[in-house]
Amino acid sequence: MGFWKNLFNAETATAPRGVVVEAFVPSMGAQRQADSRQVGRIFFSTDREIDLYELEELCDAVGWSRRPLRKVKKAIQHSFLVVSMWEQRGNKRRLIGFSRATSDHAFNATIWDVVVHPDFQGQGMGKALMAFVIKKLRGEDISNITLFADPHVVDFYRHLGFLQDPEGIKGMFWYPD
Amino acid sequence: MGFWKNLFNAETATAPRGVVVEAFVPSMGAQRQADSRQVGRIFFSTDREIDLYELEELCDAVGWSRRPLRKVKKAIQHSFLVVSMWEQRGNKRRLIGFSRATSDHAFNATIWDVVVHPDFQGQGMGKALMAFVIKKLRGEDISNITLFADPHVVDFYRHLGFLQDPEGIKGMFWYPD
Repeated sequence: MGFWKNLFNAETATAPRGVVVEAFVPSMGAQRQADSRQVGRIFFSTDREIDLYELEELCDAVGWSRRPLRKVKKAIQHSFLVVSMWEQRGNKRRLIGFSRATSDHAFNATIWDVVVHPDFQGQGMGKALMAFVIKKLRGEDISNITLFADPHVVDFYRHLGFLQDPEGIKGMFWYPD
Repeated sequence: MGFWKNLFNAETATAPRGVVVEAFVPSMGAQRQADSRQVGRIFFSTDREIDLYELEELCDAVGWSRRPLRKVKKAIQHSFLVVSMWEQRGNKRRLIGFSRATSDHAFNATIWDVVVHPDFQGQGMGKALMAFVIKKLRGEDISNITLFADPHVVDFYRHLGFLQDPEGIKGMFWYPD
């Protein structure tokens, strides 16, 4: 993961209270797209005070089923880590990515709800979002970072260094009848 | 899961403060074994005040690598659910099983550290422990119960109603270099 070590070195001095904001340098792909579409600066935040309607809009954009905002709020409150990704243009911020992780604060963390707005996909931003999440979890001394990947994103996570079924360990789910 | 619905109906009135203790009727296998070995009554508890040395002894008995007790304590504190299983004979209690779950308190829970003492394996007690854990999580309105199963226990969990890789969803792990 040497590549990621130098990615987030632009900690801003002007971050609002309680908010971790770090700049992200878009990939070459994003730079190219910027020629025609003008991509603003990209920022990350670990602030939990997210506008739930804005988050719902982001999740709508990728076609997720809607969930009760009351439960989304509770889940965010009780996540160990909440990361949002923003595009900033002038004074305007737009929520373009999100992820969160549950954890026992000691050994294990599990990443949930990874989403990048379709307008910003294919530009290395999902990769940057995940690298930020991993960096934060590693900073908290979490050694076992896990997730459950839908089939179409297994390769995405594999390229980030995630192993599928290591040593035959299987992800299993129990659903109510 | 209809079988489990009637399993834990013996809520005791004499439970210590803050402790959920429910009786468990050992399976036929345990009854047979009781003829020669006298199995005491089995109880469950959700109290987090567990003697960490007793827990370490239990984990030693199944051959797990030792972990710093400071981190084990932190993990227990920050788990959503902690379940211990005890054998009671007269005034004596012996820790014979353990499990815990992390959660966002809303949608997802992930079960970790499921252990049953070798002396009590093969008697339906792992099954009863897991059924108790599932019942507690369902009681908290958690709909998505997940875990990562080592290869030799995949069938055990399958028999409890867990699905492996449902709809192609894969368990993935990231480890530090």
